[in-house]
Parts: sequence; structure tokens; C-alpha cells
Amino acid sequence: MEKFQITILGCGSATPSPKHYTSSQVVEVRGKLFMVDCGEGTQIQLRRSRVAFARINHIFISHLHGDHCFGLLGMISSFGLLGRTAPLYIHAPQELGPMLSQEMDFYCRDLEYQVEFQGFDPSATTVIYEDRSLTITSFPLKHRVPCAGFLFTEKPTSDHLDRDAANFYGVPMWDYNRIKEGGDFVTSDGTVIPHDRLTFPSEPARSYAYCCDTAYNPSMIPLIKGSNLIYHDCTYSDQDQDRAKKHFHSTAVQAALTAQEANAGKLVLGHFSARYPDETILLDEAKPIFANTILAKENLTITI
Amino acid sequence: MEKFQITILGCGSATPSPKHYTSSQVVEVRGKLFMVDCGEGTQIQLRRSRVAFARINHIFISHLHGDHCFGLLGMISSFGLLGRTAPLYIHAPQELGPMLSQEMDFYCRDLEYQVEFQGFDPSATTVIYEDRSLTITSFPLKHRVPCAGFLFTEKPTSDHLDRDAANFYGVPMWDYNRIKEGGDFVTSDGTVIPHDRLTFPSEPARSYAYCCDTAYNPSMIPLIKGSNLIYHDCTYSDQDQDRAKKHFHSTAVQAALTAQEANAGKLVLGHFSARYPDETILLDEAKPIFANTILAKENLTITI
Repeated sequence: MEKFQITILGCGSATPSPKHYTSSQVVEVRGKLFMVDCGEGTQIQLRRSRVAFARINHIFISHLHGDHCFGLLGMISSFGLLGRTAPLYIHAPQELGPMLSQEMDFYCRDLEYQVEFQGFDPSATTVIYEDRSLTITSFPLKHRVPCAGFLFTEKPTSDHLDRDAANFYGVPMWDYNRIKEGGDFVTSDGTVIPHDRLTFPSEPARSYAYCCDTAYNPSMIPLIKGSNLIYHDCTYSDQDQDRAKKHFHSTAVQAALTAQEANAGKLVLGHFSARYPDETILLDEAKPIFANTILAKENLTITI
Repeated sequence: MEKFQITILGCGSATPSPKHYTSSQVVEVRGKLFMVDCGEGTQIQLRRSRVAFARINHIFISHLHGDHCFGLLGMISSFGLLGRTAPLYIHAPQELGPMLSQEMDFYCRDLEYQVEFQGFDPSATTVIYEDRSLTITSFPLKHRVPCAGFLFTEKPTSDHLDRDAANFYGVPMWDYNRIKEGGDFVTSDGTVIPHDRLTFPSEPARSYAYCCDTAYNPSMIPLIKGSNLIYHDCTYSDQDQDRAKKHFHSTAVQAALTAQEANAGKLVLGHFSARYPDETILLDEAKPIFANTILAKENLTITI
């Protein structure tokens, strides 16, 4: 199977902590790298990670709180210093456009590559990126300001040819792709060999849901249903559910309930408040509800 | 002697390096904290240091390159989250004013404290801060864009009273301050007891010169002459003097020559390029010219 993995660069919440960086991660799907959120210090973390800097062509910003976007200007400048020439696409809530463009006019006059801003509406469910192997959909979360989640969905790949069967029935090589994509084969004597006899099924398409900075949000469940992996807001412990409510964040229990209701493969808890010296208490609250739960941490890579 | 010390938060140059943060430091003079420059990640470093966050009331920005100011918005936001109420003064080149104010309107709408912008002209030599114990003077450096150095100068303190002598000559307590500040004493029989017989001399006033992001700049020597400590641009090794010239930065040799000509007490080299895996080569170039030289590093505190 081709690579589909997430590398956490920062998983703390806004209040600075000596333990965590603010939100950022890199999603790698079949050789392409996508950055999700870009808090202050992202470029520092990126430089420490093994992520291939120059292969990031798209940055997705979930919402316009500083802990999710204050690293953007630094990344853009440093990409310039490091000799980037490929365009960089910033996908963010529409209203960032004019602000970013002013900041770039002020701070980044000498860039030798294009920064292309592609605004989206965080209150709608929209496909905001698509290529031949992947779709990225933004969907509304429930936060103090308009805030999007991102669903990364692989497109199904064609089935694998069973070479022995293909040889046995005399399938010519030029016909392989048609068979792999679902076709049957008709032999010279007119016998129909069904697709299933000539192929092994492809791996099921995988998906990843990034649901950071949200109160408990059951309305997104139908969309993220069956995701292999969910990264979910887990700013607070269940003991602090009043705070969670007030600040439109989730508790560990709410994150776990979401993963359970979405029938997810795995749950990663993140966006930790600085108030917990040991985040194991969050894990301990989530696991009884959704067993396959882990804590995010800086430089952790999770393979789907 | 009262505290006069520098804590380095970041001493790398603009290109991100896994080893260094970008420029920032905190100068503590007699209980007051001043931040100088505020590159990306400053608030992270500050949180890791033992510096008392809330006691910083003034931030000085030398110039408007991102590696010296991209941490400003994050600091301002986080101070808000941490419940700050005291005003924060930002001293920076005048043109930052309108930009910062727009950024704050966009990102920091709910601050519960005042941010006061105090612009200065980096091409002039100007006293930009003064209180009863300290003067901070900005002076022009030689960089690609207008860029200031900062000279922190203690005001002389009054001499210390020699209690035994004062008692012996019958100086009344209400007259102590006048004597400490330079007065003589006249006894009841008319004898003049000179100031020097009644006091021990105060410690000499100390000074610190921050000269970051500059090409070799002999024109500043008269101003920084006799500084106890100089922090100087040392982006490059002498082998890379062409690069230094091109980018308006200094080599280790140029930093050492500056300290020597200024007859400084001590030199700290900083603003290191990411190209030297071991900065000892910079130290080795500087020391033969100016022996009392050290390398800056993150979290280093230097007492003057």
C-alpha cells in the first residue's frame, strides 16, 4: 500500500507551554505532502522533523486563531530564503486573503515564488482540493469563530491483476488496465471470464479526519463515518467540561464518543491545554469509550 | 550591585536551523525586564526560560525582518490569554505602527490590556527610553534595511555613606542623601568635611550594546565605547566575508575588531548562520583579536 501518514509538528493549545508547540501537522498521501494548520514555531518543528520541507505545496488553515496560523509568514519567508520556486497554495477561510496579502507586501517583498491564496467558506462542506488519488473536504466544526475540519479521502485504486489467471485465459497485455478497472474478458471462443476471476481486490480507500478546535459536534459524524483515523480536539479533561463548553473545545470523553459514533479505526487526541502536567489522565478518560486511542505528541508519525 | 543581566532566547539568523531560535533576548536592569527583538518562537523560549514573563513591559524591535519580529503577535496574544492587564510598550521602527495595528485588529480583538506603539527612527541616534536608573539609546547600524542597535546605559548611582565617618563627624540622618549625592558636611564648629571623607564611591555605571544585523560599522564606536558587554552580529566566518558583505552582516573577525576598538569588557557573538555545524570556528577567529569573547546560545544568561 502506498504511504498515508500523519506527522504531528505541534499539538498544544493556544496558551504557551514548555511541552508543546501550537497546532500543525503534515499529512503525506502517496508521495504528496499537505500541511494542516501552521501555528508559531511550525518551521522550527518542520526543520527538526524528517519531513521533506520542499515537497509541501499546500497549506490548509482551519481557522484564524493565532495558534493555528501565526507560523504562516515565517514559513512563507523561509521557503523563500531556502530557494523555493514552486508555487505554494494557502487554503484558508476567505477573510484571511486581504490580511495575508498586506502582510506579505510588508514583510515578503522579495519572494521568488508564487503564493496562491485559495479562500474557502469554513461554514460549508466543500471539496477544497482534488487530484487523481485524493480528495480533501472542509466541513464545519463548532468553535467560537468559523472553523473547519478537513477530511482527507483516498480515491479507490483499481484492482490488482492476477497474472497467473490472466496468462491462463490468454488476456493480452494491452487489455490489462481495462480488466483492472472492472472489465470482464471474453476469450477467443466467446467465453466470458468475469473480472473477479482475473483480479485481486484493491485495498479499501483510506481516510483521515482532522477535527481540531471544536466543541462536541455530532453533526459531522455522517461525513467522517468510517475514517481510519481521527485527530480530535481534546483540550480538556472531563473534570473541566465547563471550561470546554465555555471555550468551544472538547473533553477527552467527547473526543472518544465522536470516534465511537463515527466507527473510526483509531483516535488521536490533541490540542492539549497547558493545565495537565501529565496527559495520561486524558487518555484514561477516552480509552474506556474508544479503546484504540493514543495521545498526540510532537514528531509522532502515525501510519494509516 | 543590582542585577544587570542578559538572557538569550534566540541567536540564530533567519534561515531556520534545528539548533537555534531566531533573535530575541531579555535584558534585566535593576528589576526591570526589557525584551530586545522578538523572532518566531520567542514566547516558546520565554516559557522555557526562568524569565518572569509578566514583568516585561517594553519590547524593542531593531528592524522589520521577520526573524526579528515574527514572534510579536504571538507574544501579544499570549500575554492576553495569560491575563495581563499592564500596558505593553512596543518600540519599533515607525513604519511597523500601521501594520501592527491592522494585524492586532484582525487577530487580537479581545485583549484586556493596552498595547502602546512607540515608533522611532532607526537611522538616528535617539534616547528612546529613560527612567530614573536607565537610558536606552537607539543608534543606526549598517544593514539592508534601516536597522537600529540599542545601548542600555545605567545612570550613575549615588555614593555609599561611610556610617562610621558620618557618626564620627555627627552628620544628622536627614542629611545623608545630600552627602551621598556629592555634598560636603560642615560641623557645628565650622569645619568642612569633604564628601570623599564621608563616602565610598559608587560602582561605575554599566552599559550593554546590542549590535545585531549589521555589517562592520565603525561609525558606532564612539557611542558604544567602554561598554561592559557587546552583543554583535557574527553571522559568518571570515572565510565567508563575501557573503557577509553581500547580506550586510558581520564576520567573527569584524565583531572582534569592533569590541577591541570600543574597548569593551566582553563580547558575545550571535546571529549565527545555519551553515556552521560547529560555531567554535567563529570563536576561534574572534579570540586572537578580542580575548574575552563567548558564543551566544539559547538560555544563556550573562551577568554584567
